Amino acid sequence: MEATMTEVHAETPWRARFAQRTHGVTSSAIRELLKLTERPDILSFAGGLPAPEVFPLAEVGAAVQRVLEEHGPAALQYSTTEGYLPLRELLVRHMIRYGIQVTPDNVLITSGSQQALDLIGKLLLNPGDQVLTEAPTFLGAIQAFTAYQADFVTVPIDDEGLRVDLLEEALRSGPKFLYVLPNFQNPGGVTLSLERRQRLVELASRYGTPIVEDDPYGQLRYEGHHLPPLVKVDAEYHGCAHGERAFRGGVLYLGTLSKTLAPGFRLGWVVAPTEVIEKLVQLKQGTDLHTSTFTQMVAYEVARGGFLDRHVSVIRKVYGDRRDAMLRALKAHFPPGVLWTRPQGGLFLWVTLPAGLDSTKVLDEALQEKVAFVPGAPFFPRGGGAGTLRLNFSYCNPQKIEEGIRRLGGVLLRASRKLNQAP
Amino acid sequence: MEATMTEVHAETPWRARFAQRTHGVTSSAIRELLKLTERPDILSFAGGLPAPEVFPLAEVGAAVQRVLEEHGPAALQYSTTEGYLPLRELLVRHMIRYGIQVTPDNVLITSGSQQALDLIGKLLLNPGDQVLTEAPTFLGAIQAFTAYQADFVTVPIDDEGLRVDLLEEALRSGPKFLYVLPNFQNPGGVTLSLERRQRLVELASRYGTPIVEDDPYGQLRYEGHHLPPLVKVDAEYHGCAHGERAFRGGVLYLGTLSKTLAPGFRLGWVVAPTEVIEKLVQLKQGTDLHTSTFTQMVAYEVARGGFLDRHVSVIRKVYGDRRDAMLRALKAHFPPGVLWTRPQGGLFLWVTLPAGLDSTKVLDEALQEKVAFVPGAPFFPRGGGAGTLRLNFSYCNPQKIEEGIRRLGGVLLRASRKLNQAP
Repeated sequence: MEATMTEVHAETPWRARFAQRTHGVTSSAIRELLKLTERPDILSFAGGLPAPEVFPLAEVGAAVQRVLEEHGPAALQYSTTEGYLPLRELLVRHMIRYGIQVTPDNVLITSGSQQALDLIGKLLLNPGDQVLTEAPTFLGAIQAFTAYQADFVTVPIDDEGLRVDLLEEALRSGPKFLYVLPNFQNPGGVTLSLERRQRLVELASRYGTPIVEDDPYGQLRYEGHHLPPLVKVDAEYHGCAHGERAFRGGVLYLGTLSKTLAPGFRLGWVVAPTEVIEKLVQLKQGTDLHTSTFTQMVAYEVARGGFLDRHVSVIRKVYGDRRDAMLRALKAHFPPGVLWTRPQGGLFLWVTLPAGLDSTKVLDEALQEKVAFVPGAPFFPRGGGAGTLRLNFSYCNPQKIEEGIRRLGGVLLRASRKLNQAP
Repeated sequence: MEATMTEVHAETPWRARFAQRTHGVTSSAIRELLKLTERPDILSFAGGLPAPEVFPLAEVGAAVQRVLEEHGPAALQYSTTEGYLPLRELLVRHMIRYGIQVTPDNVLITSGSQQALDLIGKLLLNPGDQVLTEAPTFLGAIQAFTAYQADFVTVPIDDEGLRVDLLEEALRSGPKFLYVLPNFQNPGGVTLSLERRQRLVELASRYGTPIVEDDPYGQLRYEGHHLPPLVKVDAEYHGCAHGERAFRGGVLYLGTLSKTLAPGFRLGWVVAPTEVIEKLVQLKQGTDLHTSTFTQMVAYEVARGGFLDRHVSVIRKVYGDRRDAMLRALKAHFPPGVLWTRPQGGLFLWVTLPAGLDSTKVLDEALQEKVAFVPGAPFFPRGGGAGTLRLNFSYCNPQKIEEGIRRLGGVLLRASRKLNQAP
């Protein structure tokens, strides 16, 4: 008996116990790359980090003391899965100014908008289901939906965002939902035009395809005019058709405080019809019970009384200057044949290299020069993009941007020359 | 064209768009019940809430100021998915004293241990897979694994915890893993004896079944001696067999700061072999990127320097007194034929009603008397348990416990009499 047990046992160490039981979890390109941004000697345009200079440290310190004095133990206790009601009310007041007419019952606080993507995947996706995205699209969304063993169908973007002229064919393949970033897209930096927003809503509605509208950067516009979010375009489209007044659209809208307050709080939110919110609440309960009571109360206490608006104005100025610095540097230092988008807001711009240049190989050489970016390929869920890359302009100050782009321009110039000299 | 579009469109409002696309998400019994605990007129033994009186408010306030002064913007910035290294190091030092010999590389910080359950489900479960649990078991685990469309195979508990004499048959059915709460089980309040721990590890190892050891209450022992966690029993078992010194067991161990510091921070952790941690890290990245940098740094700053140990001593005293108050009140006020467990620690005890009494019906009557508990049935993943219920003794003070149990005793006495009078 003992011998038999040892024998069986010898065949089942931890490795065998887990190896055959886990889903295919592949290593994440961005995760490895983000490690580069932590090396202090690297000028990094790789991450999507907000500028630490704009974090409201003093306001957070004061807010914590008020929260502990006024709410006491409630700030450290379990709380409802839906989220802290005053925070949801504040977000509703905020969104109404951007054209999103909803009530707090339409809002679920999430642990960053990354969690909203996870919960939506959990709610809607079965293995083998298709998700329709832009190509390129947000890496975190690819990761979230891939964990539910989704497949992808993609539509390319151009300077006006998702190519709606190619959308109908993709919708015909029957995706579970359409995931789109209409404002200052990550990674493309492009913004979906008003005409395309209307056409996109019309087509998605015709095919009965829900839209997941991810809007982390919508308030960070440095030029031009605010465009109505898809959730508003959809509500108007349905309102006209049906005379409905309540929020019943086919759009789930995702917002976050990570880019306007502080990512370290991990606070995002999802807007949806109440029946969808109820299902997401149940799934969130099984996922992390609720988002930190403490960070929700502190964030509310910081944001209320108009601070969030004033703070967003400061961020717009800082990031707008950095975008301008990067555009100036690109013009000055990048060799002919390299193309880039000109974002009206957000944190990123998108670079297309001359044919034949591979951005992963360019990154190897760039790292020798102590400058980093993210190669474009991982942003394409169905492959491609070897000749593209993403640059972040929010994290480095204008001086570092100038220096980093100068170095990167040198790398690209040498790579282009080498390419032209090749037989 | 326009007419056609309106026609198709009329068939695809939001309801149709989402209705056919969502998994079967059912409403949660505990969630509805927890709403009762929020009614201030109810004496509630329903939730699993820590006593707000023991929350370290002053220490949290001071810790926040130190974190903001010493770490500045880093406390509000994105951070690594693995979690804040000093916090992981502190948890390792803490666990070593409880017999768990690991390094920070074996620790992933999670957004409450509920998230560890979710990530483990995501890593290991495919639709239709079986999870082996105690019956009754933790509701949050049932929720987390059900979201991955798992089925359950169960083994009953008695006063010494999981009935290991019935375990082998359950293991033969090929569950993906065994989920167990060895200390002061939620909801049963019972503790797995040392002999059973050894036998459980031996059998799980023989069948190559990973163990998920959930230990939220392990430090909250009010009498008797600490028993080695399964992760230690397993390491010793494998160490003897293979002479391995590194942590390579088949046990994933789950801990939390919710019961020893503050649940509002949402901080838990999972201990696993590094290869499993790496996979969990990748899944967590797609789930919420990382747990709040701010709460991790604040919790570390509160806990370090021995405060956590001193604080746990305070909590033990407070909860131990409340457990004693409840045991006294049960003896004084509950009618003959009602049985209950006598927990050596934790937050809960488990009541078995005389045959014929249904705890859900008893709850209806109890609510008339302004007292609440959780009926036992939802804790049984494969049904049953209609004659059982769970009582929490950590949240109400001894006076309220005496009053609430007195009322509940009256309800039970009337229900028993009615039952005996029935034809």
